[in-house]
Amino acid sequence: MNLQRYLPILNWLPAYGRGQATSDLVAAIIVTVMLIPQSLAYALLAGLPAQVGLYASILPLVVYAVFGTSRTLSVGPVAVASLMTAAALAPLAASGTPEYVAGAILLAIMSGLMLTAMGLLRLGFLANFLSHPVISGFITASGIVIAASQLKHIFGVEASGHNLWEIIESLVLSIGNTNLPTLAIGIGALLFLLFARKRLRPILSGLGVPGRMADILTKTAPILAVLVTTLVAWQLHLGESGVKLVGQVPSGLPELTLPSMDWQLWQQLAVSALLISVVGFVESVSVGQTLAAKRRQRIDPDQELIGLGTANLGAGLSGGMPVTGGFSRSVVNFDAGAETPAAGAYTAVGIALATLFLTPAIAYLPKATLAATIIVAVITLIDLPALARTWRYSRTDFGAMLATIVLTLGHSVEAGIISGVTLSIGLFLFRTSRPHFAVVGRVPGTEHFRNVLRHDVELCPKVTFLRVDESLYFANARFLEETVMDLVTGEPELKDLVLVCPAVNLVDASALESLEAINERLRDAGVNLHLSEVKGPVMDRLKGTELLAHLTGRVFLSTFEAWQMLIGQVRSLKETA
Amino acid sequence: MNLQRYLPILNWLPAYGRGQATSDLVAAIIVTVMLIPQSLAYALLAGLPAQVGLYASILPLVVYAVFGTSRTLSVGPVAVASLMTAAALAPLAASGTPEYVAGAILLAIMSGLMLTAMGLLRLGFLANFLSHPVISGFITASGIVIAASQLKHIFGVEASGHNLWEIIESLVLSIGNTNLPTLAIGIGALLFLLFARKRLRPILSGLGVPGRMADILTKTAPILAVLVTTLVAWQLHLGESGVKLVGQVPSGLPELTLPSMDWQLWQQLAVSALLISVVGFVESVSVGQTLAAKRRQRIDPDQELIGLGTANLGAGLSGGMPVTGGFSRSVVNFDAGAETPAAGAYTAVGIALATLFLTPAIAYLPKATLAATIIVAVITLIDLPALARTWRYSRTDFGAMLATIVLTLGHSVEAGIISGVTLSIGLFLFRTSRPHFAVVGRVPGTEHFRNVLRHDVELCPKVTFLRVDESLYFANARFLEETVMDLVTGEPELKDLVLVCPAVNLVDASALESLEAINERLRDAGVNLHLSEVKGPVMDRLKGTELLAHLTGRVFLSTFEAWQMLIGQVRSLKETA
Repeated sequence: MNLQRYLPILNWLPAYGRGQATSDLVAAIIVTVMLIPQSLAYALLAGLPAQVGLYASILPLVVYAVFGTSRTLSVGPVAVASLMTAAALAPLAASGTPEYVAGAILLAIMSGLMLTAMGLLRLGFLANFLSHPVISGFITASGIVIAASQLKHIFGVEASGHNLWEIIESLVLSIGNTNLPTLAIGIGALLFLLFARKRLRPILSGLGVPGRMADILTKTAPILAVLVTTLVAWQLHLGESGVKLVGQVPSGLPELTLPSMDWQLWQQLAVSALLISVVGFVESVSVGQTLAAKRRQRIDPDQELIGLGTANLGAGLSGGMPVTGGFSRSVVNFDAGAETPAAGAYTAVGIALATLFLTPAIAYLPKATLAATIIVAVITLIDLPALARTWRYSRTDFGAMLATIVLTLGHSVEAGIISGVTLSIGLFLFRTSRPHFAVVGRVPGTEHFRNVLRHDVELCPKVTFLRVDESLYFANARFLEETVMDLVTGEPELKDLVLVCPAVNLVDASALESLEAINERLRDAGVNLHLSEVKGPVMDRLKGTELLAHLTGRVFLSTFEAWQMLIGQVRSLKETA
Repeated sequence: MNLQRYLPILNWLPAYGRGQATSDLVAAIIVTVMLIPQSLAYALLAGLPAQVGLYASILPLVVYAVFGTSRTLSVGPVAVASLMTAAALAPLAASGTPEYVAGAILLAIMSGLMLTAMGLLRLGFLANFLSHPVISGFITASGIVIAASQLKHIFGVEASGHNLWEIIESLVLSIGNTNLPTLAIGIGALLFLLFARKRLRPILSGLGVPGRMADILTKTAPILAVLVTTLVAWQLHLGESGVKLVGQVPSGLPELTLPSMDWQLWQQLAVSALLISVVGFVESVSVGQTLAAKRRQRIDPDQELIGLGTANLGAGLSGGMPVTGGFSRSVVNFDAGAETPAAGAYTAVGIALATLFLTPAIAYLPKATLAATIIVAVITLIDLPALARTWRYSRTDFGAMLATIVLTLGHSVEAGIISGVTLSIGLFLFRTSRPHFAVVGRVPGTEHFRNVLRHDVELCPKVTFLRVDESLYFANARFLEETVMDLVTGEPELKDLVLVCPAVNLVDASALESLEAINERLRDAGVNLHLSEVKGPVMDRLKGTELLAHLTGRVFLSTFEAWQMLIGQVRSLKETA
């Protein structure tokens, strides 16, 4: 049982049949065709030699098939992680040098170790601290930076920079050196790919191609662009006209690579590796969950960490770059009918064959074509309407999102994501530090109590019912003291104060001390403190504390019971008087 | 009105009368007698020349009388801030050098600027992130470190160190050089002060001295120890026997000092200044609030920041060290009958007179006496039972407290407080990231719904009521998705799921997206999603969102209404069938 938890392959392999194998094989062929240009392109984006992208698309896929829980996730190099890899390595070495490649391999190894450790320690919840607006803002901004960074390949100029301003500045300064044949290929590939994305499907449908087939054919446009431009570049000797080509790629399967043991390098890359791990995991899990839900399957996030972690270890040990589950490829894999992770293993075989036999042809592939596939792919990541949607729903979430976008564009991907996370945590704590309090009164004739400011309710000047709409903890403990004392200061007739607690999910040690202080101060002021609707788990803790021992009032199960007892008391006192 | 807010002196000065003046004057004399040895001792603790302590007890008290809101807080050097000052300056210069003194002055100025700015920006809530267990653990550990650091003066040896282990190691290595006359004075002063604290009051009461007078006389024991040991040291020429004396103290009032403009020094001291500010503010406000509550007065925490900030600016500009409200002196001031902050101003006059006329005598004061007064003073800070109390109430709060104590003792005061704050925030987020969910059923014959695991309730297999006991936000959004989907996977008969939300105080953008995802996934699974008891402020936000537009079910005001509608529906369907 436990073995099946840590080796999810045991859940499907024993019952693996011919029907599943056929479906998986078909999906694998389609994904392979899609993955060849993508793996080359993302290696380019990360500043790495083309083969590093191919290597990252072989062993990791096999490993994920053993340890991963998603049936249809397609693991490999992805755009955002490639950008983050480039950003992490830029300060350490010049792009493409052996040190740079060693750094990418180390990033994959470290990311693999971190993810696997998080999975074994069941720390998957840590990824939750990347809130949706921060992730969404980060991916949008990364998409913009990636697209901008690829323009130099379209124009065939030298340019650099790790944020939008640097990239634009560098581009503007070098645009005079534009290489026209490169520009022609780049613009041609871009237009073709955009056309394929927007128009090809309706045209294919019009020609009688069935819907799903048309969808899948559309996804093969990039390989077509690669084939055509490679042929053109080879035939016209475009390399000699200054068109940058991918160049010589070593043929053959990757060899076992051991990571650098330079302890200082490990320290320098630690934060980057952690960010790549967490961002990659969040992307992967959300794709995996969306696809799993469509077929009533479940994925286990903690085991998923192990799946992605071991896949990254596989990437690093075979000379590859950091990998994760890619959105568009996973959707194609799913739509093409993949039924088990075996499809991923078959894809790995496809990429291995490409590495063995296609590398001579790849040498003539223009970088402009790869840049065009990257730009068209990342345009889908850019979700500007999400900004407006978030603004309408919540200004604080919008603030965190905007900060992430501005810093990712204007400073660096790492600054963007770290400030987004810090800001979302800070804003959440700020919100809960000034909780909503409401004086409530009885809805006449019922047992219900509602905010006096929103409803027409019964009140009694000698008893105030104060509803606390938040867990009580250190950040709002002092605010609670102030709120209660302010309330009491203004009401000389007050004899009883009831704290109505149905929304208090937690009372920590700080809040307990504040409640004790409130109880004492109210006692000095001649006011009894009562509690009502205290939740079971909270009440369990409060038993045996000083607070309950010295509470001047009572703990009521329901607010209505408190109303009956306290208002009843007052009335009978009146009658006596 | 606004002027009175920022200048609280306007609230009491116009009506200041002779009766108040007399009370304030009596309190001021007693506090002055207590403050002279304390200000010298805390300067010693901070590694500063004695006069710096005196200077910090003149202008700051006058400034606080103008800007502070507490009527009885006694501002000046205190033990914990002095320890933190020493810890901040140790890496920068040797104790007692002009650079070291300049650092202390800069700390006071920076702390003053930070506190004033926080007050003007109304950022007093930031101090709330120091939870009670962290503050309590920090003060206990600081007390232990301070007491240990003073033992070298009692033994008359050279020793150093900034955490308990370093101090003990250094002491053990140098204990062979103990100076016997110093040890005699140190132990004598310690025993006398401990006797005075424990036994003097009952003896005085036995002699017929009235209770409050006896209390106050007990507090003058330190000045008595100072007088006697100074006389002994002078008469017996103890300085020549190797007893360390305070030595020449410049006579006369402090002069205007301008802070260092070395920008690098500002950067180096920024974190320390912030920690000293926040810790000092938290100590001050809790003393101030406790005393104010006893007389039905209020203090305004944001204005209190301005009061302490300007007092620290006063300290820095007059050559003094960082100051804050001290616990023991404030209690004495209160008990001695101080009625307005004028008492503080009178105390400043007392200290100014001491600075003008008593400094020649102070030269003969043995450092061992000051060390003894510090040790006896900080023993009261050490609250070990709080550890047991916190352990019993909450393991997580205990964890934060223990980490603070262990790191303060074993590493440094700054590491202690920073890790305590980080850990309390982390643990709070962790707790709320796995919230309590309960499937609830109807208490038979009522409109109440309770946890099925705790109560005997009615259920219906086609409708599940799930109560969420936490605000829904990014840290628990994915956990919510998993919980709901797990619940649905196990129940094939399920047709309706009601999320019962009385404890949901917030739904942020991440949780909104999760709810939308849940709604879609449940729709695919043939289950309708309903909400009940959504709070007003939460509902206001949800209006106009995709979630409500596409919700497969309804939003019910009460859970009972949902029960009637949904169970009613099922029953009528049954009847039809």
